[in-house]
Amino acid sequence: MDRVLIIGAGAAGSVVAQKCAMDRDTFKHITLASRRIESCEKVAKLCKTPIEIAQVDADNVAEVVALIEKVKPDLLINMALPYQDLPIMDACLETGCNYMDTANYEPRDVAKFEYHWQWAYHDRFKEKGITAILGCGFDPGVTNVYCAYAQEHLFDEIEYIDIVDCNAGDHGKTFATNFNPEINLREVTQDGKYWKNGEWIEIPALSINCDIDYPEVGPKDSYLIYHEEEESLVKHIKGLKQIRFWMTFGAEYIKHLQVFKSIGLIGLEPIKHKGMDIIPMEFLKDLLPPPSSLAENYTGKTSIGVIVRGKKDGKSLTKMIYNVSDHAETNKEVSAQAVSYTTGVPPVSGAAMFFRGEWAGKGVFNVEQFPAKPFLEDVAKRGLPWHVIDVKPGDQDELFAVET
Amino acid sequence: MDRVLIIGAGAAGSVVAQKCAMDRDTFKHITLASRRIESCEKVAKLCKTPIEIAQVDADNVAEVVALIEKVKPDLLINMALPYQDLPIMDACLETGCNYMDTANYEPRDVAKFEYHWQWAYHDRFKEKGITAILGCGFDPGVTNVYCAYAQEHLFDEIEYIDIVDCNAGDHGKTFATNFNPEINLREVTQDGKYWKNGEWIEIPALSINCDIDYPEVGPKDSYLIYHEEEESLVKHIKGLKQIRFWMTFGAEYIKHLQVFKSIGLIGLEPIKHKGMDIIPMEFLKDLLPPPSSLAENYTGKTSIGVIVRGKKDGKSLTKMIYNVSDHAETNKEVSAQAVSYTTGVPPVSGAAMFFRGEWAGKGVFNVEQFPAKPFLEDVAKRGLPWHVIDVKPGDQDELFAVET
Repeated sequence: MDRVLIIGAGAAGSVVAQKCAMDRDTFKHITLASRRIESCEKVAKLCKTPIEIAQVDADNVAEVVALIEKVKPDLLINMALPYQDLPIMDACLETGCNYMDTANYEPRDVAKFEYHWQWAYHDRFKEKGITAILGCGFDPGVTNVYCAYAQEHLFDEIEYIDIVDCNAGDHGKTFATNFNPEINLREVTQDGKYWKNGEWIEIPALSINCDIDYPEVGPKDSYLIYHEEEESLVKHIKGLKQIRFWMTFGAEYIKHLQVFKSIGLIGLEPIKHKGMDIIPMEFLKDLLPPPSSLAENYTGKTSIGVIVRGKKDGKSLTKMIYNVSDHAETNKEVSAQAVSYTTGVPPVSGAAMFFRGEWAGKGVFNVEQFPAKPFLEDVAKRGLPWHVIDVKPGDQDELFAVET
Repeated sequence: MDRVLIIGAGAAGSVVAQKCAMDRDTFKHITLASRRIESCEKVAKLCKTPIEIAQVDADNVAEVVALIEKVKPDLLINMALPYQDLPIMDACLETGCNYMDTANYEPRDVAKFEYHWQWAYHDRFKEKGITAILGCGFDPGVTNVYCAYAQEHLFDEIEYIDIVDCNAGDHGKTFATNFNPEINLREVTQDGKYWKNGEWIEIPALSINCDIDYPEVGPKDSYLIYHEEEESLVKHIKGLKQIRFWMTFGAEYIKHLQVFKSIGLIGLEPIKHKGMDIIPMEFLKDLLPPPSSLAENYTGKTSIGVIVRGKKDGKSLTKMIYNVSDHAETNKEVSAQAVSYTTGVPPVSGAAMFFRGEWAGKGVFNVEQFPAKPFLEDVAKRGLPWHVIDVKPGDQDELFAVET
């Protein structure tokens, strides 16, 4: 197995293609496809070794089927929009092609961030004898594997997980999102949610925040939001009592969000404008700078990880597992800011795991269901080193004091 | 003279029609015309006496000409959009119809708030033997007449004028504009400007603010912005050293403006959205609540006036002339909030002045060029009483301390 088809040539898709093209031992044949062939051409020029490119409308199952039949990939890596997960999975089922993505399926009309649509494909993928690996970006993705690693190697029993996501970068713009604005604004402005003692507890959007101390960055104001990996982790981490997800936002970011919400700019229902139906959120997306335009002059670091509390040999302990990436360094390496980089490198490692047979199974899987260590070693070599530290009494006091 | 044609059936146009319909001695024949006939029907139902309605596209000179020829008005009151002032004036010239408006002509592509386009019609109106009365709303309009009254009756010499505009109302919405959002946002987000010693001095938008003490409202944070009546007042108030215009904005309003500006939502250049050309400002207008929807449940007051400093009988003195209107009361009377009311009542008085021959002249005029007192007495009877108070040493200290 050494043939890969990447669909989606946005900021993160570009990183996937470039990183695959740096490892021709593993990826002998690489095709990058996108709705806009010019995007593929741009990425191909950035690749250190030659790749194939193709035009495809990922919403159109027949087009994706035809492309798979032509390219004959061993694995399709879906870096397109979350709306397109299901048509692409349908095309994989029809052609018997293995599948991987980095973000769960979303219906276009309402933000859900739920896995059930894709999990419903499990039996069909199993019967067809093929594999689907869901959510193999950074978060979801590497953060899930950190949890799996903690379960396998650091704890006998995991009780509490806090996933903590900090982007301390500065792109010099008053407001911009680091990945697809539509997806970013949907996930941030929806009601918050966390899981405790077997139940999902909903909170108003951005209503709980605290300072979290991020490695190599320091304390940053962080908001409790819902994030999709929580849904799979509560299924796969045994004995869990609580899982929460936190993300840093600056004052300007919050101010912009509040205004977007107040005037209905993030609405998904079309409004009438000069006789046309315009979806405010989609119009907003076209107003904002594209995430790929942020790489240049982006400075600062991302610091993303998991803080796990539990027991080992009868003793309570708290560990933090994390990665720090530097916007300027990732831009130098692959012309992408660190948020695109941390999303684009993990699927390359996931694909390598799959090709080597380290990650194997017929059906639909989340990444924490596979062995953690070989993946973490591989993704470290490709540019995302991981660190494990002890969280000592007194550290992260504000986070642990939040009553949820 | 007793026939009036009102073009424009928005929130302020509705007030003009209703107030004319309350005075059938002066306005024997009333026609209300608008692009959307349903808007006229809605207003006609609110009128206490029957009015005629008609459909017209105010951008289309031929259509307006045909309407004037059919209705044969003695005066056309233009309550349409400022973009439409010139085509309507063209139609008046062609048909020999007298003209009045409440806001100066604006080109669609860039905010200017300048009178030169309309003043350029002076000779043609004069030759045709007809009258155009510009800016007969509240500000411009009543505020100009307050200044003219101060010049005629209260001062020998006027040195400083501050026009102060406070809306202390609460419409219960996080953000909405009290009149056409496009015009409101244009005037507020453009660079500020004031006039001193014969020169216009530009300042960055919303960069100068101070507390002003408004009658019946109290001190409110007010921003120096440019407003069109300053341009005509510096021509018509003799000996003037400085004129400034101030408007109150709440913290939420300013926050929304900053965000609109930062993401380009008030841009007048079209952006590409799904192959369509969309002008962000026009899209924003369709997102925001229409001003006419604000009347219900609107509470609080407007307090708008002029603070004049100058000399009388060799002595320095400071006077304030103002009106206070109450949103709930105006809504009860004519189903309109006070900003629409204070804009819609003055043209009715202006029309009455014109019909009675109190305001006369051939050519293009601003309202401060006509006798002030009969107008102020008339507009007081129709619902906008005026008050003159002494500003004593210690009053308005913060305003007078602003260095400009």
